[in-house]
Amino acid sequence: MVKKALIKHSPLMPKKALNLHPIKNISLYVFSAELYNKSRDDIAIFIFPKNSSVAEVFTKSSLRSSTLDWNEKALKQKKISALFINSGNANTFTGKEGRSAIQKIIKKIEELFSVSRKNVFVASTGVIGEPFPIKDVINAISSPSKICKDWNKAAKAIMTTDTFPKGISINSKVENKKISITGISKGSGMVEPNMATILGFILTDIDLDSKLLNKLLKENIDDTFNAISVDGDESTNDTVLLISSRSIKFKKKITSINDPRLKEFKIKLKKVFKSLSEQIVRDGEGATKLIEVNVTKSRSKFEAKAIAKSIANSPLVKTAIHGSDPNWGRIIMAIGKTYFQIDEKKLKIKFGNYLLTKNGKVNSSINEKNLKSYLKKYKVSINVDLALGKESAKVITCDFSKKYIDINASYKS
Amino acid sequence: MVKKALIKHSPLMPKKALNLHPIKNISLYVFSAELYNKSRDDIAIFIFPKNSSVAEVFTKSSLRSSTLDWNEKALKQKKISALFINSGNANTFTGKEGRSAIQKIIKKIEELFSVSRKNVFVASTGVIGEPFPIKDVINAISSPSKICKDWNKAAKAIMTTDTFPKGISINSKVENKKISITGISKGSGMVEPNMATILGFILTDIDLDSKLLNKLLKENIDDTFNAISVDGDESTNDTVLLISSRSIKFKKKITSINDPRLKEFKIKLKKVFKSLSEQIVRDGEGATKLIEVNVTKSRSKFEAKAIAKSIANSPLVKTAIHGSDPNWGRIIMAIGKTYFQIDEKKLKIKFGNYLLTKNGKVNSSINEKNLKSYLKKYKVSINVDLALGKESAKVITCDFSKKYIDINASYKS
Repeated sequence: MVKKALIKHSPLMPKKALNLHPIKNISLYVFSAELYNKSRDDIAIFIFPKNSSVAEVFTKSSLRSSTLDWNEKALKQKKISALFINSGNANTFTGKEGRSAIQKIIKKIEELFSVSRKNVFVASTGVIGEPFPIKDVINAISSPSKICKDWNKAAKAIMTTDTFPKGISINSKVENKKISITGISKGSGMVEPNMATILGFILTDIDLDSKLLNKLLKENIDDTFNAISVDGDESTNDTVLLISSRSIKFKKKITSINDPRLKEFKIKLKKVFKSLSEQIVRDGEGATKLIEVNVTKSRSKFEAKAIAKSIANSPLVKTAIHGSDPNWGRIIMAIGKTYFQIDEKKLKIKFGNYLLTKNGKVNSSINEKNLKSYLKKYKVSINVDLALGKESAKVITCDFSKKYIDINASYKS
Repeated sequence: MVKKALIKHSPLMPKKALNLHPIKNISLYVFSAELYNKSRDDIAIFIFPKNSSVAEVFTKSSLRSSTLDWNEKALKQKKISALFINSGNANTFTGKEGRSAIQKIIKKIEELFSVSRKNVFVASTGVIGEPFPIKDVINAISSPSKICKDWNKAAKAIMTTDTFPKGISINSKVENKKISITGISKGSGMVEPNMATILGFILTDIDLDSKLLNKLLKENIDDTFNAISVDGDESTNDTVLLISSRSIKFKKKITSINDPRLKEFKIKLKKVFKSLSEQIVRDGEGATKLIEVNVTKSRSKFEAKAIAKSIANSPLVKTAIHGSDPNWGRIIMAIGKTYFQIDEKKLKIKFGNYLLTKNGKVNSSINEKNLKSYLKKYKVSINVDLALGKESAKVITCDFSKKYIDINASYKS
């Protein structure tokens, strides 16, 4: 059972207070099924206008949550009528009772909000393998509720062990019409042992169909949500949804993501993806430092990302950064264990602007004192120049502290 | 610079004191180049009789130590005359000065011991990227030294941050002749931040040529040294050597590893490989528990091992076991993230004999109290039955404690 409540904030929490704007024609409802305690919400339901479009990406895990099997089916309709999200239970490895719970939820939402159950999407996050508390959930959502104008509450309702709610609202312009984008995400908290489950929901009002949303989602996901890591453990429930109410229409319909009218919108949308995914790392379990790993001049994007991930996921690299230790030998190790052929003589490794290697050995003219004070900053970049090609990749991760052990070695129940 | 000395022993250190037997006709010399301090040795040299045979496996890292490039070349001669091992410096990413250091070492050994330099093997372990202290090393080995009869000293000389020396001596019989096997290994210590560099050396006297030794090495390595993990970080210097003085000869020469006369020897040899590799995990950085991951009934050996490694390397699984937390959802996660297709309904996960899952969901009839006291033991097994085929694999690892952070977040220099 989920026992502990949120206690304090990550030191990397963004300083600016969350201020999410509702999107026109999308209604939010929040509920408490008391899966944590009475004082916090644990369910958010968004109700969308007719013809709202949707795109979704899923975890690649072969033991994923039943909710994602359902959504994959629903996605074929290319429409979304409602989105149900609960925290407190992942509905993963819960057998036929778990699958039946999804049917009960979508049926109840159909009844309550007069929407087609075929187009209801479901997302769950929390402990894996515990029976899904369907009675509590149905009771909670059946009790009357008003439309919630404070969208910060949606970001709060979907938190599990997160130490702060994650979201961003941003406006854009297309043909002089104001377009709104609001995104929320969750992931990677503390206190209650749990998966680093990531959920992301980005809502907008621009008139783009599901096919175009899907292209925009695919275009953004690799460099944002798929380019962050806390501990290298991929969740069974990871999912990101991009949804539009399609309320803002244009004389000449937008039919391609290369339409020049989308230029500014695409920049803003990317900003939302980047912000939401970085906020997850800022709330990484036990995190005290943000680490940006840049791998440049690789032969392929795949190579750059594999090397960046190997560095970002190495416990030895993460503990070195935690201790502000300029132990670049561990970066050599993390590159080597990817098995990509490297030209040692050309390889350049930098912490920030401090060059550590030159001609296949240590750069002995480095100013160790300045380097150490750089490594003590809360944000550190590791820059690897392979000098092999023209591709690059960036991965954002956090350090590895004793708090990670504290958080994850406590009892589940 | 290497500053800190060994301070205390891993709680998982074997209770029996090390008692290594020399192998006939093989001479050991140990030295201190004061790479740590005056009071401990840091160099071991073995001198072999003519025609001694050798087999070696290397790390797959693409940024490996220059010593391994040299050995790979030497290996083509199928003979070994001497083996030089130093701790305190990995001779990795040390440029042409590092490569030149190897040449100086083998030349000096040729001079001192009248052996062919072409057949000298070199192994180094310690910090990556620091200039190799060749002057100190040559000075140390040039000073006169007696043959060392106490082979425990070899196991001690090759330690870096290890908290206990690792080795095993065992006898076998072939055609009523006594065969001796002595192995030493090192890896995965504490105090001084370093790679989990693994070195293993197994010495024997049975008359088998390099080709047969190589077959025996390959036969044993996958289930022993390649089936252990501390933190998933593969070293640039990992290597294991199997060497024979070929002193014990037979009327009818052994020309195949399937020769029935080798039956008992092969069992003993496997025991040596298993013991040496398990001793490394018992000295895993910060380890307080040994974890055995068994994956059975897989479609292929590859699948079983990939799943076992995914579980063994998951920080979330390792911290759960550290906290004696029956959080089996994390095992589900670790299986799922391998992307192998799994039959949820058939999948069985056990801690020891405690069955946690049944029919694709939690086994609710489990005795939680007994399970928790099982998880508090110093040795825990995670058993995963995939019910998909006939293959299996075992991986041995250790838990993840705050001590791991302590050890690895301290300053390099």
